[in-house]
Amino acid sequence: MRYTRHIFVCTNRRNDDDPKGSCAQGGSEEIRDLFKKELHQRGLKTKVRANKAGCLDVCEHGPNVVIYPEGVWYCHVQKEDIVEIIEKHVIGGEIVERLLLPDPRYSPEKTRYEPLKKEPIK
Amino acid sequence: MRYTRHIFVCTNRRNDDDPKGSCAQGGSEEIRDLFKKELHQRGLKTKVRANKAGCLDVCEHGPNVVIYPEGVWYCHVQKEDIVEIIEKHVIGGEIVERLLLPDPRYSPEKTRYEPLKKEPIK
Repeated sequence: MRYTRHIFVCTNRRNDDDPKGSCAQGGSEEIRDLFKKELHQRGLKTKVRANKAGCLDVCEHGPNVVIYPEGVWYCHVQKEDIVEIIEKHVIGGEIVERLLLPDPRYSPEKTRYEPLKKEPIK
Repeated sequence: MRYTRHIFVCTNRRNDDDPKGSCAQGGSEEIRDLFKKELHQRGLKTKVRANKAGCLDVCEHGPNVVIYPEGVWYCHVQKEDIVEIIEKHVIGGEIVERLLLPDPRYSPEKTRYEPLKKEPIK
């Protein structure tokens, strides 16, 4: 797997008067830039990538983020959530439950994934 | 897993005089639209999604496509390859070897994946 985690942030932008709204109007472009910056600062550039994505079709929950290969969907993501997603999920392999998309079709398959760095054996 | 396969097509566009080139200059926007159309025609809209993505950082191999959760990277993808990728990989779970990105860091973890389950006829 080229990237242990590949983060896709919806940066779709609709017209300001579109009733659907859009993730970009919710600040997702800055969210993606902050993911990139925080990953680089932690030396994770070669293992984890944060990409812009087109519409993920859950606009009412935006800004939306999906992390692969786990297929874990986070919604209403704000700038303040990024460090938690990186530290807990991306590095630790633990889901950030409070940000999960509240629709059973999007439920994660596991409650815990392989951490990025092996924990020392206790 | 919300989508059995989630296809990300790089649609990044650089200036025409940029020596790096870009996937959009190689026709990737049309490639993404064709993926979407072919998936819809096969009734796969609820199981498989084709999304635009920002730069996937392998510009020299573009147009680039990555399919999750498998993490399989295809390069130099052309319009003529889309039906094969859908029929063989997306539906059949078999890798399209001739399109794999020729860099060992991007090698798939398996040679075969779970095929898409057929819907019962209603």
